[in-house]
Amino acid sequence: MAKGGGSCAAAVAAACGRFVVSTAGRIVVGLIGSDIEASFSPALHEREAQMQGLPYVYLTFDLGRLGAAPEDVGQLVDSARRLGFAGLNITHPCKQLVVRHLDRVSGRASLVGAVNTVVFEEGQAVGHNTDWYGFEESFVRALPDAVMDEVVVVGAGGAGTAVAHALLTRAAGTLRVVDIDMARAEGLARALQAHYGSGRASFVAPSELARSLAGASGVVNATPVGMVGHPGVPFDPAWLRPDLWVAEVIYRPLETQLLRSARRLGCATVDGGGMAVFQAVEAFELFTGIRPDAERMLKHLDALIAEHEPASAV
Amino acid sequence: MAKGGGSCAAAVAAACGRFVVSTAGRIVVGLIGSDIEASFSPALHEREAQMQGLPYVYLTFDLGRLGAAPEDVGQLVDSARRLGFAGLNITHPCKQLVVRHLDRVSGRASLVGAVNTVVFEEGQAVGHNTDWYGFEESFVRALPDAVMDEVVVVGAGGAGTAVAHALLTRAAGTLRVVDIDMARAEGLARALQAHYGSGRASFVAPSELARSLAGASGVVNATPVGMVGHPGVPFDPAWLRPDLWVAEVIYRPLETQLLRSARRLGCATVDGGGMAVFQAVEAFELFTGIRPDAERMLKHLDALIAEHEPASAV
Repeated sequence: MAKGGGSCAAAVAAACGRFVVSTAGRIVVGLIGSDIEASFSPALHEREAQMQGLPYVYLTFDLGRLGAAPEDVGQLVDSARRLGFAGLNITHPCKQLVVRHLDRVSGRASLVGAVNTVVFEEGQAVGHNTDWYGFEESFVRALPDAVMDEVVVVGAGGAGTAVAHALLTRAAGTLRVVDIDMARAEGLARALQAHYGSGRASFVAPSELARSLAGASGVVNATPVGMVGHPGVPFDPAWLRPDLWVAEVIYRPLETQLLRSARRLGCATVDGGGMAVFQAVEAFELFTGIRPDAERMLKHLDALIAEHEPASAV
Repeated sequence: MAKGGGSCAAAVAAACGRFVVSTAGRIVVGLIGSDIEASFSPALHEREAQMQGLPYVYLTFDLGRLGAAPEDVGQLVDSARRLGFAGLNITHPCKQLVVRHLDRVSGRASLVGAVNTVVFEEGQAVGHNTDWYGFEESFVRALPDAVMDEVVVVGAGGAGTAVAHALLTRAAGTLRVVDIDMARAEGLARALQAHYGSGRASFVAPSELARSLAGASGVVNATPVGMVGHPGVPFDPAWLRPDLWVAEVIYRPLETQLLRSARRLGCATVDGGGMAVFQAVEAFELFTGIRPDAERMLKHLDALIAEHEPASAV
C-alpha cells in the first residue's frame, strides 16, 4: 500500500507518533534570502530542536521562489509576525534592508548595521546580529593563541562588518579593511575608527592588499569568493605565508580553494563551519529561550556536510 | 548529554536524517480558526504526507493565540500567500468571512457560501468547500441504503449548508432545515429551493422539530451541540425512534450524547469521523495534487482518537 519513499516516514510515524501529533505548540521560524534552498540552517536548527524534544519548524522563504524582491523583506517579516512565528533568520541580500522594518535592534546589530536574526516579542520585531558571536566563538575555539597585532579583513559587507567588530572587541590590535568597492571599505573603516579609536582600523585599496598581507599576522576572507556558485580565490594565494593564519566565513564548501592553499603551506586555518554553527546557536537561543548543545550542533554540521559533499567532490 | 524527551527524536534523526534535511521543497499549509490547538488536522495531513514521502508541514494559526479577530482572516491569508504557502484550511469563525478576500471560489464553495480550503495558485487565492465532499463520502460509505425521502438538518450554519447541498445533490427527496436562528434556517431553505426546486426544501421552527422528526427518515446534527466544550444534545433524544437514521458532523467526541442515545435505541448512525477525514482527503489533494490514501487516513483518525480519548472517558 505504501508508495515509494514511505518506509522511512512510516518508521518515524510508528516510532514517534506522539511527537508528530504535538503540532499545536510548535515554534515556527524561517529564513529569508536568495538562493537559500540548499541552506543547512533548517536541518541544523530542527535536529537540535528534536534532540531537545521541542516541536520546532524551520522554513525557508527563498526570494526567487516567492517571486519577491529584496525590498519585499518588510512584507515578509510582517507576514511571519502576523502568523505568530517565533522569529526569522535573514540572509543575503536582506540583512541591511530589513533594519528599517524592525521596531528595535540590539546594540550589536546596530553597530554592524545588519540583522541576521529577528525575534518577535509581544508583536514587536527585534533585530539581532548573531554573525558577530558566530565568528568570535568559532575563532577563539579554533585559534585561541592567534597573534592579533594586525589583521586584514577582505570584504566589507555584512559578514566583514560582523567579523571586524568581533575581532576588534575581542583582541585585534589593528584591522585593515579591503573591498573591491573602495567606498564600502572606507565606510567600514571610518565606522570602526569612530567606535574603537582612530588607530585601530584603516582601509586599503585592493592594489595594496599584497603589501598589507605581508605585514599582517592573519587574514579573514569575508567575501563570497570561493563558495559554491562563486568559485575562485579572493586574492592570489601566492601572497600567503606559513605564519599567516587564515580564516573563512564560507562553509560550503568547508574547504575553500583559499583554505586548501593555506593548509598546503602550513598556515593555521579556521573554516566557516564554526561561524555557521555558532550564529545558529545564538539564534536558536533567541528564538526558543533554550540554550542549544553547541557541541552537538557542530557534529550535526559535520554530518550534514558529509551527507551533501562526498569527499571525492572538488 | 541529551536532555529529557530527546530519545525519540534522536531515533528519528538517526533513522531518517535525509527526510529531516530535505526542507527546501516543503509544502507548507495551515489552519486558521478559533480554538483549533487540539485539532487533529495537522496530524491527519502530516502523517499521510509522511507515508507518501512528501515533505509537508501543517501549521495552526489560532486566532486567540495570535491576538487576532475573525475579521483579520484576510490579512492572515495574505501573509500565508506572501510566504509561499500551498494553501490553508479555514474553520470557525472564518469560513464565511474569508470569502471576500479570495480571488476566486469554486462552484461548491459559492453555493455553500463558505470556504474551508484556500489554495494558492500562481499568486491567486482560490476558495473551495471540502466539507460537502466530506459529508457526502462519509455518509454514502456508512449508510449506502439509507432511506432519503425526508431528511431533517438541524443547524443552518456552514456545516449545515454543506450537508444540505450534499444530501440534495446526492439523493434526499426533501429537506427540512431547523435552526434556533429562524431567519438563518429560512435563508438556507430559500437558497436550496432556488437551486434544487421549491418542493425540495423547507424550514421549520424549533418548536416543530419533534413533528418534523416524526415524519422523517433521517436527521443530521449540524450544530456544535454535543462537541467538546458544548456538551448536551441538539434536541430531545426522546424524539428518536429505531427506524430513524442519525448522522453527526461532530467528531470530538466521536460518540456524542445524541449518537449514544440513537445507538441504544438501535438507530443506524454515522459519526463525524468520516466527514473529518474526507474533507481532509480532498483538501490534501487540492494542496498537493496527490491523492491521499483515504483508508489509511481513516485508520489514522481512529489512532488519534484512541490516543487522545481513552475508552473510559465520558
